[in-house]
Amino acid sequence: MALAMKKKKLCQEVVAVTRHAQSLRIGKKMRAIDRGSLNLEIIRDADLVILAMPVSAILRLAPRVRKIISKGCLVTDVGSTKEEIVAKLSKLFPNYIGSHPLAGSEKRSIAYARPDLFKNSFCILTPASRTDRQALRRINKLWKDLGAKTVILSPARHDKILSLASHLPHILAFSLISAVPRPYLKFAAGGLKDTTRIAASDSELWSDIFLSNRGSIIKAIGLLEKRLNRIKSAIKRKDKRLLDRILKLAKKKRDKLH
Amino acid sequence: MALAMKKKKLCQEVVAVTRHAQSLRIGKKMRAIDRGSLNLEIIRDADLVILAMPVSAILRLAPRVRKIISKGCLVTDVGSTKEEIVAKLSKLFPNYIGSHPLAGSEKRSIAYARPDLFKNSFCILTPASRTDRQALRRINKLWKDLGAKTVILSPARHDKILSLASHLPHILAFSLISAVPRPYLKFAAGGLKDTTRIAASDSELWSDIFLSNRGSIIKAIGLLEKRLNRIKSAIKRKDKRLLDRILKLAKKKRDKLH
Repeated sequence: MALAMKKKKLCQEVVAVTRHAQSLRIGKKMRAIDRGSLNLEIIRDADLVILAMPVSAILRLAPRVRKIISKGCLVTDVGSTKEEIVAKLSKLFPNYIGSHPLAGSEKRSIAYARPDLFKNSFCILTPASRTDRQALRRINKLWKDLGAKTVILSPARHDKILSLASHLPHILAFSLISAVPRPYLKFAAGGLKDTTRIAASDSELWSDIFLSNRGSIIKAIGLLEKRLNRIKSAIKRKDKRLLDRILKLAKKKRDKLH
Repeated sequence: MALAMKKKKLCQEVVAVTRHAQSLRIGKKMRAIDRGSLNLEIIRDADLVILAMPVSAILRLAPRVRKIISKGCLVTDVGSTKEEIVAKLSKLFPNYIGSHPLAGSEKRSIAYARPDLFKNSFCILTPASRTDRQALRRINKLWKDLGAKTVILSPARHDKILSLASHLPHILAFSLISAVPRPYLKFAAGGLKDTTRIAASDSELWSDIFLSNRGSIIKAIGLLEKRLNRIKSAIKRKDKRLLDRILKLAKKKRDKLH
């Protein structure tokens, strides 16, 4: 976001707070940030604060951010689950909107930042009932300026949709790579590689996401188990007709996903 | 294979038999084949026959091929499961070796053929106990000439390894895309797209593969279910420590798969 905002001249100055001094050095070299610190105090005069950390870190640090910034400061976060975060942050900050840009990869580090990351992606905004309309307009414009198509959803609806469209694929990727014995990996072709690519994602980030969307994720796993059991039972009963029908419908659905 | 063999001048003439006249036209235009027919009779004088069809079609057509070709003709197939095929074909043909090139994609048609498809890929050869050594050497050389690294495995061992390294990922991809409600698909980011890419594979081809490797596949699904249940129960019990450990180990394993 910093890189894209600097490139599109959407801000005067980017001030970064990170856990590792190394990230600040890389960020400055890439011209993604102007000033940086390991200490939160540096954000005191910010007009806009973007919380881009794992879900539990956002929840933990928000009260400290609240004590530092001004009342008028616009606040957003890019956490991958929204119910817990929006419930807490909308009480803390008068000008807060939750964001979830559906962009990125399994790679984690400022070194992988690209200014065009959000181009043609979706960004979901999750206002709370008490959300300031002016703040919503400004955050909405920011994401559009970064190239994203914005969609407004309630935090609950967001978490339900994402449990199936994002969290479940990650759980399956982690489960699948765990299930394949190490000596078999040399026989992996494109299929296993693609289906497990996201199992290389940051484990801390994802355990946070899974735990902060427990209800929807358990339901999503239940839906998957039903579909898996239908295929398993068709194979067990040698029901070629049923198996053909299940696979054909699945293929038809996947063919539409570009 | 035809395209690669022509390009590398490994054969004098490629004669193709297909179900659809359209494939013959494309194949000739691409200079992958010299002559073609919808009638099997055309293969009468072949020195080498390559059976490249879905598993059930290989099993069904092999006896007819046997009646047409000469005794000395070398025969291989590229079916994705090997126990059933090798058991039947090694009885029919004195010079038969099963092959399974671990290359290709979810796309099916000669239009997607590439002469470099096998470069740096693995090809598994599955000789039977009665397999002629000379035939094995020739088929082994053919795959190496096409750029593949060959590995020799028993048909049973092949089917067990592939049930985990290839068939299980396909079953999960088909199950996952079936589980995601259609209106949620617009929120699919890279994760869902990659994990389900192979669900766009040919359904007839894959129902054949699943049914011809039933035992190993049911066991593979069992292994997956165990891993999935471990993650599900850690999420249910909010066991962040266990969840972190499972995901971290999975990531470590995936990081080694290039």
